[in-house]
Amino acid sequence: MDVREYIDANASGFFAALKEWLAIPSISGDPERRDDVRRSAVWLEAHLRETGFPVVEIWETGTADEPGLPTVFAEWPAEDPAAPTVVVYGHHDVQPVEPLAEWATDPFSPVERGDRLVGRGASDDKGQIFFHTLGVRAGLAASGGTAPPVTIKMLVEGEEESGSTHFADLLRERRDRLACDAIVISDTTMWAADVPSMCTGMRGLTEAEVSMYGPSSDLHSGSFGGAVPNPLHAMTRLLAGLHDEQNRVTLKGFYDGVIELTDQERDSFARLPFDEAEWLATAGGSRAAFGEEGYTTLERVWARPTAEINGMWGGHTGPGGKTIVPREAHAKVSFRLVAGQDPQAVQQAFEAYVAEHAPPGIRAEVHVTGAGVRPCFSPIDSPGVLAARRAMERVFGKEVLFTREGGSGPEADLADILEAPLVFVAVGLDEDRIHAPNEKVEMPLLLRGAEVAAYLWDEFAGRR
Amino acid sequence: MDVREYIDANASGFFAALKEWLAIPSISGDPERRDDVRRSAVWLEAHLRETGFPVVEIWETGTADEPGLPTVFAEWPAEDPAAPTVVVYGHHDVQPVEPLAEWATDPFSPVERGDRLVGRGASDDKGQIFFHTLGVRAGLAASGGTAPPVTIKMLVEGEEESGSTHFADLLRERRDRLACDAIVISDTTMWAADVPSMCTGMRGLTEAEVSMYGPSSDLHSGSFGGAVPNPLHAMTRLLAGLHDEQNRVTLKGFYDGVIELTDQERDSFARLPFDEAEWLATAGGSRAAFGEEGYTTLERVWARPTAEINGMWGGHTGPGGKTIVPREAHAKVSFRLVAGQDPQAVQQAFEAYVAEHAPPGIRAEVHVTGAGVRPCFSPIDSPGVLAARRAMERVFGKEVLFTREGGSGPEADLADILEAPLVFVAVGLDEDRIHAPNEKVEMPLLLRGAEVAAYLWDEFAGRR
Repeated sequence: MDVREYIDANASGFFAALKEWLAIPSISGDPERRDDVRRSAVWLEAHLRETGFPVVEIWETGTADEPGLPTVFAEWPAEDPAAPTVVVYGHHDVQPVEPLAEWATDPFSPVERGDRLVGRGASDDKGQIFFHTLGVRAGLAASGGTAPPVTIKMLVEGEEESGSTHFADLLRERRDRLACDAIVISDTTMWAADVPSMCTGMRGLTEAEVSMYGPSSDLHSGSFGGAVPNPLHAMTRLLAGLHDEQNRVTLKGFYDGVIELTDQERDSFARLPFDEAEWLATAGGSRAAFGEEGYTTLERVWARPTAEINGMWGGHTGPGGKTIVPREAHAKVSFRLVAGQDPQAVQQAFEAYVAEHAPPGIRAEVHVTGAGVRPCFSPIDSPGVLAARRAMERVFGKEVLFTREGGSGPEADLADILEAPLVFVAVGLDEDRIHAPNEKVEMPLLLRGAEVAAYLWDEFAGRR
Repeated sequence: MDVREYIDANASGFFAALKEWLAIPSISGDPERRDDVRRSAVWLEAHLRETGFPVVEIWETGTADEPGLPTVFAEWPAEDPAAPTVVVYGHHDVQPVEPLAEWATDPFSPVERGDRLVGRGASDDKGQIFFHTLGVRAGLAASGGTAPPVTIKMLVEGEEESGSTHFADLLRERRDRLACDAIVISDTTMWAADVPSMCTGMRGLTEAEVSMYGPSSDLHSGSFGGAVPNPLHAMTRLLAGLHDEQNRVTLKGFYDGVIELTDQERDSFARLPFDEAEWLATAGGSRAAFGEEGYTTLERVWARPTAEINGMWGGHTGPGGKTIVPREAHAKVSFRLVAGQDPQAVQQAFEAYVAEHAPPGIRAEVHVTGAGVRPCFSPIDSPGVLAARRAMERVFGKEVLFTREGGSGPEADLADILEAPLVFVAVGLDEDRIHAPNEKVEMPLLLRGAEVAAYLWDEFAGRR
């Protein structure tokens, strides 16, 4: 029995089990749902045991004072002790379901609609992590072996949708158990059902709030206007100066070390069937693309760092006019970062920029929000990426193109703490409505994901 | 009996009458106080009659649908029909009194504290318009005449503190009755009790709100940031660009026609005992002076036009971070204008500037708020200014310096509609706490104001 025959024969059982799991409302962001997240972990624990993993554990996170939500860990050693070890990362918690009125069916009563399975978590991420269970069984059925060709360590987090609060600590504590040669991430998307693709990087992030203070109270602009500094003027100058005429970020050293796109990646991006007008429609009906000169829209959102004003306020914001010199101005600013950039270095460059640009008489303050998110990146010629690409091309029968993602979760922590390269293997689609009402997954694609997973371990082990 | 003897002999009666008037809470901005404003007009009508004005009228303003508050008009023709005619402008309405808790005494129970008379309107403007009644009587007492040496037309408005809503219309309707050779404004201040000065101009104003619209909803900055225009970026660039490196306003034609300060005025400003550190303290503890290069602080607030951001908002302004590309940005902007500038021309230049600077993909809108306020200006060598200056120097016994004011009320309408030059004659002080709790006036200065008013008509008539 080959891989595909096994998968077809077991598809209905696979979806029946997945639906059981999807029925558990494991919303990590909702304090009322903590027990459900726990039930979800216990359900997965049982199912991974049933799949054949000899080691399955529930790992608690957080502390006694501030308990977190559980991660599920499972390990299946390779037959050959010299074979590589791969961590497979995904998460079993899901997004909230509001606005509930916009769901056509109950989010936790998963239903099939033609080829689609509809329910919260169907794509993000229960469906996508679950295909690995069918994949590993299919691989064994085809090879006749009793253990996979690589050591597989499943690592299924329970707090991804609420900021992975305790995940980095868990990784540090369990580093030895998680030792590996590569990390497969199954929590992203492909370009389209008929355009297989692999993500190769995600942007990081650092955020700050900047405030500028002038007079101790709002001043009458007739009596004082034109002779004292206006914090809103200072703020507009400061923030307008963050970009140059080419829409490049002006912070000192901002682009130092940035890993530039290779010609091969740019070429692969260019071959994606990208319709800019359609993309602009999904971008809230934006009227024009706009950004750093010399880059396409996809390059800009996937592989170029940014400075973005997320909010700004100061002075009179109510109805009517009020002719004042306002006492203060505030702005929230964030920077998307790409491979080669360090959140802390960018924070420091921003602090230095603000200190340098506050005019006389204005006191400027920067508050950095959080530690930031490190960008992550897999070179397209790395062995893991090449192995996963071969597995996907075998399943889809056509060239697999490359993509990236503009934002990220805990992926960089995985790579940094476990010191292993990332490989993104996923079959979700951008149109799956993750984080939105009526989330769905294409069932045929989940089965293709299982097929990719079945071939993947052979490719990783260097045998076919 | 000379002027000063008459004034001293009648001072106590003058203050007793003024206190009666101050006790009427004629707050034009408070709809509950409309009857009190009316009572204030009736009180003044009676008092002007008692002073000797043969013609005294209450002029209603507004329309039947939207009634305004009354202006008091009084006329006293000169003995010589060839003598000049002077309109004396002031107002009998007052500012609100909030915060009431900060008043040491009831705002409408005027009390004397040493040389000071404390109460709402004591300086702004009942006290200052009232000294003319004592002045004209003192002049007649000294000359032995039965009519003043010029035709005096008192014009005492009832809506100045609530925007002079109906005043321009009234001026147009009553233009013939108000025909004059000069307009004396008694509603400003002197530099200090021992530094007599005259205002020679007031800045005008035009206001607008500008909005910039990008996507139809806030976008995730991971998915879209860097590739679509951000309305807050566009707004900061737009507004930062309103000033050049010399802090001059960049609107096309903004300075065209601006009447520059003469060397004599600059010299007079420079001779005022101005303590910049003290001024900065009154400017809400501003830490440094800042403004258009090449001008002093007083020149900047009095005689230079400005562009000021009064308020700005957009995107996420609540606690915490929110990594979005915001859908829109808004700002309130105002321009202070000086002689030679036209509010409408500046509005048009601003609209053109916004249209020119909105980047691709951003829709920009400008809403002009109101018709604006025209600047006003009296050249320091005009006959009226010279006459008033001589009268003041006679009373104060020292050189009268020149000042201006940074904001204004309906003064430009008076000059424009009545087609006569303005002359500012006032004895209020900046420290009188007008518009604030515990407003006061220096009683000896009000008596000096009466003395100036007594000499003023001789000076205007060219006789001493």
